[in-house]
Amino acid sequence: MAPVNNNAQINNNESPPKFKVTIIGSGNWGSVAAKLIASNTIKLNSFHDEVKMWVFEETLPSGEKLTDVINRTNENVKYLPGIKLGSNVVADPDLENSVRDANMLVFVTPHQFMEGICKRLVGKIRNDAQAISLIKGMEVKKEGPCMISTLISQQLGVNCCVLMGANIANEEYRDNKEIAEKWVQLFSTPYFMVSPCQDVEGVELCGTLKNVVAIAAGFVDGLDMGNNTKAAIMRIGLKEMKSFSKLLFSSVKDNTFFESCGVADLITTCLGGRNRKCAEAFAKNGGKRSFDELEAEMLQGQKLQGVSTAKEVFEVLKYKGWLEMFPLFTTVHEICVGRLPPSAIVEYSEHAPKFPRVGGPTAFP
Amino acid sequence: MAPVNNNAQINNNESPPKFKVTIIGSGNWGSVAAKLIASNTIKLNSFHDEVKMWVFEETLPSGEKLTDVINRTNENVKYLPGIKLGSNVVADPDLENSVRDANMLVFVTPHQFMEGICKRLVGKIRNDAQAISLIKGMEVKKEGPCMISTLISQQLGVNCCVLMGANIANEEYRDNKEIAEKWVQLFSTPYFMVSPCQDVEGVELCGTLKNVVAIAAGFVDGLDMGNNTKAAIMRIGLKEMKSFSKLLFSSVKDNTFFESCGVADLITTCLGGRNRKCAEAFAKNGGKRSFDELEAEMLQGQKLQGVSTAKEVFEVLKYKGWLEMFPLFTTVHEICVGRLPPSAIVEYSEHAPKFPRVGGPTAFP
Repeated sequence: MAPVNNNAQINNNESPPKFKVTIIGSGNWGSVAAKLIASNTIKLNSFHDEVKMWVFEETLPSGEKLTDVINRTNENVKYLPGIKLGSNVVADPDLENSVRDANMLVFVTPHQFMEGICKRLVGKIRNDAQAISLIKGMEVKKEGPCMISTLISQQLGVNCCVLMGANIANEEYRDNKEIAEKWVQLFSTPYFMVSPCQDVEGVELCGTLKNVVAIAAGFVDGLDMGNNTKAAIMRIGLKEMKSFSKLLFSSVKDNTFFESCGVADLITTCLGGRNRKCAEAFAKNGGKRSFDELEAEMLQGQKLQGVSTAKEVFEVLKYKGWLEMFPLFTTVHEICVGRLPPSAIVEYSEHAPKFPRVGGPTAFP
Repeated sequence: MAPVNNNAQINNNESPPKFKVTIIGSGNWGSVAAKLIASNTIKLNSFHDEVKMWVFEETLPSGEKLTDVINRTNENVKYLPGIKLGSNVVADPDLENSVRDANMLVFVTPHQFMEGICKRLVGKIRNDAQAISLIKGMEVKKEGPCMISTLISQQLGVNCCVLMGANIANEEYRDNKEIAEKWVQLFSTPYFMVSPCQDVEGVELCGTLKNVVAIAAGFVDGLDMGNNTKAAIMRIGLKEMKSFSKLLFSSVKDNTFFESCGVADLITTCLGGRNRKCAEAFAKNGGKRSFDELEAEMLQGQKLQGVSTAKEVFEVLKYKGWLEMFPLFTTVHEICVGRLPPSAIVEYSEHAPKFPRVGGPTAFP
């Protein structure tokens, strides 16, 4: 009698191999992503139900390990309290172990940590792994800025898509729709509808640069300057996002800024959002309390991206000789480091060649 | 002894004739415009100091006429209370008299009144008059929509610029910068910086259509659906504004939507603004109190533009067979007239061919 083949499903040539997902990161957005993904893997036959989530281990005030609490309660009590992640989410404090079996890697950590994480993962991931980055930010190198998806892709030798707002973008999308559609399947739910987009650089820069504009919007809020001023700042911010992206990558398209990752994500981030919130507090305190202090006090361990992105953008602008062309980005950084007062955010246009005052008493004496 | 020439300044060939401004309309925006303009005419030599403002006469609860109170207190106590207009603003209840001497006409009334006002002004304005419209809306005719600036221009035989957000646009701008620059001079102040723009249709449609999106944003607020949803609705609204404008006028440019009249004015209107406010109340009441009732109660005589614009847009879409392509505009109208509940604003995308769901469980069973 022939032995029963327990692996029938896997070995059967008619069933393609299942995809296995690991999420690298477990902050607020990482936990939301885990929940979205886990609700889909359990429904879709082409994915393994289980979703691994690498968690940077912390000891909670109760003395318990964060991973133990997540695995016991099915909740990330620190970064997404009150929300069940799905019983198929498994927290793992061991980075290398968490990626061992996965062929779909979702990167969603603060961007400052990615260079180190990539170094640890070299040679540790599957040959057929695909990656997606939900990370906002860039690494500034001597030779120019390097987007995080490029860093992942170069260091790990994998194809890396990006998800920003509700847009998934893929370098290879034009030739290879299959993988972008796999990611769309993995993230889409009736309440989070994801659309693919071909403009990888545009999408990633939208997601990254919007946090700098949110800092500017927060200053305006902190100074109680009203909605007209805030809207004007957001508009100039969007224009600088577009100009900066197009100067860095000629492939970037105007239309990307009308997508979810552009104007919608910008509005959301400038209305709510942690960057706006800390910048508001910074301006209310007249710049006397540092962002580091406010971050520690207000964000309970979450990281502020806008301030470090503003610094990175400033370095790029300085290196390229573009400072004068980007008065808003430049001013945000100079306020963050204390070289200008928060109120400078509404005065920058006076001495900016790119946004000259047209008319007005001084121009027409 | 030769008599002293009292008109030396006017008759001297080296001094060009001065421009004389009349504002037709005295609502909230009309009164703000009067204040801006009056602060400039008093400073600039090329304008007469006096600015006439035609006021649709009303009797106030005190028994006094509105024009008398404006001329006595220098304040529009009904539509811009607490703000001094400048002592060089003179209210005039007589439409024909108010425009007699003016060669710069600023139109800023609710758009429903413009057809009647134009009829009364035919043959009554100066031959060298220039016009500018600050009016949002359109007249829907059998042959298609007619923008208000076109109505003014056709009925009165004048060149008519538009000012929306902080953009002035001029049909003749390319050939004749002088008049656009005159308007820029008249409106620009250190706190309201105006930029010229060549895309008249784009600018006017931005100003007009944003009020429909503000109604949608107000519904989201009334339903307490949060910033993410509101931002998503604003983005789709901006996209429909762009598509609608480009379908009507092939000359409309994408970049106009990144201008002040586009994204900035949209954000301002969707954050504050009377359209948003009334729509919020409409949704909170589950559509049981009509917009007419809410307008009367909440706006103290100010007019709501978004609801009538939504109706006009709907008529254009229906006539052109474009309803399916504009789910947001269509849905706003259908909610306003009670054919759909306010919650439909977030459901429209489900049955809209233009914004299909990509991925998700149903698309990939």
